[in-house]
Amino acid sequence: MMSQVATSYIKENRQEYINELIEFLRIPSISSISDHKGDVRDAANWTVEALKTAGMQKAEIMETPGHPVVYGEWTSADNDHTVLIYGHYDVQPVDPVELWDSPPFEPIVHEEKLFARGASDDKGQTFMHVKAVQALLATKGSLPFNVKFLIEGEEEIGSPSLDEFVQSNEQLLSADVLLISDTPMLGKGRPAVCKGLRGMCSLQIDVKGAKGDLHSGLYGGAVQNSVHALVQLLDTLRDEDGRIQVKGFYDDVIEPTEEERASYAQLGDFESELKEELHLNELFGEKGYTAREHTWVRPTLEINGIYGGFQGEGVKTVIPSEAHAKITCRLVPGQDPDVIIQQIEEHLQSHTPPGVTLTTTRYDQGKPFLAPTDHPAFKTATDAYEAVYGTPAVFTRMGGSIPVVETFDQVLNIPILLMGFGLPSENFHAPNEHFHLENFDKGMETLIYFWETLQFEK
Amino acid sequence: MMSQVATSYIKENRQEYINELIEFLRIPSISSISDHKGDVRDAANWTVEALKTAGMQKAEIMETPGHPVVYGEWTSADNDHTVLIYGHYDVQPVDPVELWDSPPFEPIVHEEKLFARGASDDKGQTFMHVKAVQALLATKGSLPFNVKFLIEGEEEIGSPSLDEFVQSNEQLLSADVLLISDTPMLGKGRPAVCKGLRGMCSLQIDVKGAKGDLHSGLYGGAVQNSVHALVQLLDTLRDEDGRIQVKGFYDDVIEPTEEERASYAQLGDFESELKEELHLNELFGEKGYTAREHTWVRPTLEINGIYGGFQGEGVKTVIPSEAHAKITCRLVPGQDPDVIIQQIEEHLQSHTPPGVTLTTTRYDQGKPFLAPTDHPAFKTATDAYEAVYGTPAVFTRMGGSIPVVETFDQVLNIPILLMGFGLPSENFHAPNEHFHLENFDKGMETLIYFWETLQFEK
Repeated sequence: MMSQVATSYIKENRQEYINELIEFLRIPSISSISDHKGDVRDAANWTVEALKTAGMQKAEIMETPGHPVVYGEWTSADNDHTVLIYGHYDVQPVDPVELWDSPPFEPIVHEEKLFARGASDDKGQTFMHVKAVQALLATKGSLPFNVKFLIEGEEEIGSPSLDEFVQSNEQLLSADVLLISDTPMLGKGRPAVCKGLRGMCSLQIDVKGAKGDLHSGLYGGAVQNSVHALVQLLDTLRDEDGRIQVKGFYDDVIEPTEEERASYAQLGDFESELKEELHLNELFGEKGYTAREHTWVRPTLEINGIYGGFQGEGVKTVIPSEAHAKITCRLVPGQDPDVIIQQIEEHLQSHTPPGVTLTTTRYDQGKPFLAPTDHPAFKTATDAYEAVYGTPAVFTRMGGSIPVVETFDQVLNIPILLMGFGLPSENFHAPNEHFHLENFDKGMETLIYFWETLQFEK
Repeated sequence: MMSQVATSYIKENRQEYINELIEFLRIPSISSISDHKGDVRDAANWTVEALKTAGMQKAEIMETPGHPVVYGEWTSADNDHTVLIYGHYDVQPVDPVELWDSPPFEPIVHEEKLFARGASDDKGQTFMHVKAVQALLATKGSLPFNVKFLIEGEEEIGSPSLDEFVQSNEQLLSADVLLISDTPMLGKGRPAVCKGLRGMCSLQIDVKGAKGDLHSGLYGGAVQNSVHALVQLLDTLRDEDGRIQVKGFYDDVIEPTEEERASYAQLGDFESELKEELHLNELFGEKGYTAREHTWVRPTLEINGIYGGFQGEGVKTVIPSEAHAKITCRLVPGQDPDVIIQQIEEHLQSHTPPGVTLTTTRYDQGKPFLAPTDHPAFKTATDAYEAVYGTPAVFTRMGGSIPVVETFDQVLNIPILLMGFGLPSENFHAPNEHFHLENFDKGMETLIYFWETLQFEK
């Protein structure tokens, strides 16, 4: 059972916390835009101060080749157990800024929602952890376990410095459990712990024919057209139902259990939700799986972009010499990105039409992640949600990838709890990002409950 | 037999003619660039003066909604027969200008080739007709038939004003035969009369899925990807050998006779020539036809451009909402562009994959052309070539389209002789365009021979 003291403290200081968060959100810490480099550092410094205010015994900037990492810790617990908390203080760009109803870095509260870039992803959620810990320390004088904060400034650009940072600071970051709040709830009032993420691999495909673009009158019919060739090649990757035709692609997939599939089936009508949200009359996907399963437990291969030949207004009677495509796969547990990308390259090589040459270039990849939900901390987390939200938290997966989670898993080898408090409708990465203050309040309560009920086996 | 008088006149005045042509070529009459509008008019005025110098009784600018047409005539022949000559005084743009070895509008003669934009296409060839007529008039005091010149300034932008001009001036342009020198010879020393041109039709294809680009992690697997859908759709248009799969596409094609095919087979090894020119290891085309037949007598459907989704550096994990392609067909005698474009639209509609909507937009189209080579003027033309070049002229076709030829055919209903003097290697529309002076000299001789031997039946 949760004591009411820390929770009361949170409630008393609510307006002040919101004001502080607004201050945090005013800093335009866009990690992808070099003009904002100073702002990113300002946000790091602000985070250091917030950790000190919360009662951390140590809080400092740690340099990386890119934007700095903020590290903080309180290590005076009466035991050796440690909770590590990961978050990020950088935000996405704001373009197209004209689609925002209020300026992205001038936070406002409207109908109990806080509107600003980063409100939900991830300044708001990171700040909740800081304040939950602060409430516990302020009201009890100590925490039940040690705490470490790792708050980075490059999450929105793919965490390029963090792999190396985690590997070099394995000792510093050692802990028993890792908490991350950067995934969505299932919906309003529907808490979820995300237990799986998809991995990724990606490839650029370049096809080249004649030495240059050709006049379609003078040469048309006698030479290969690179765009036709690319179209023919790409069309071999997928069948008409969306099943990937690359040999071996599904071989290592770990199928979800019937229990897991049954639990997802009870989550509601995702198909209708999707169609409405995306303005679609029909969905499309591999036969034998639901839309939720398509996005959570099945691997994909998507063409992300294609280009070649004339793209201007009207027509130009040209036979394009070159054609290009970009593809990415989302991978599920069991699949190894190195193996999959190799299979795809072999498929492309063996299906290249005559008259063109093929080049492929690998880009980012990351392994899929599946959490060990039999660890007791998972039960603690779902119980905490249920205590506060009044409804059981469900285990979900997410179709996206958070490559750093896989790094934490590999290097730290501890249970990772993805306890999100954002809603899918909160426009992460889009105009009018916002955060429901209901989840700001309940989220802090949930975290306090989690801290107070967490137990480690002897 | 040809008299030597006019030919000697040509030879005596050769250097002066070249100097005049250089003056013509100095005018940057690029019809597609509005900044050159004044230059285009300067070239029209220059042409009027050249026609007056040649002895035309009338030579004037005639306005159109676009660049002006130059009209000239001499109508004092002792009979009612008239030769109409069509050419154009406008030129293509010069980009990329840095690839020119000498400035495009500062003509120079190098190794008996005249380098300048328009040298071959079509100022040089148009000028030859003017000078051939001048030589006849200057040395004989009259021409065997009346002559009319129609020299336009919009050929390189698709002759947008000429259809209307020809239709409105049917009486003014009435003639017994039309001469055009704007097609290539077969090669050096290999004269050709082009008897067929391919027609054209063109279509923009737009595919749209969800309301916007989607995150490939959150949605990937459950919704149609517009680029995949477009790829799948476009791949239905052609089989692996390049044969078009649109129902009815080949139904109305008038196959060339065995004699015609045999004559093309004797023209030499076009396959090797093409591979070398285009830096290709292999050609590609419909089975059962040679490369020359692919480009001259077979219809095509080419994707001229494709675009959709992310085209920048690296990868972006997006499911594109829209995808676009542009296609054009080259059509051969028998095929009607209206019918073909309709068949293609129906094919696309019936093959559109689920989860996307299709829109098509028609662009330019033009009918194919096949000359009535049994008209005696064709024999006169090939004899004229043979007399000067010492080798028989062959009938060829051209894979490209000159839509105005079809208009002349429809409106004037007279034989059209495409007697070209350019070489395929002379870089029309490309950097370092040039004109072999050998063909400037022999071309004028050929035209004089043609004028002197042409006969019309009673």
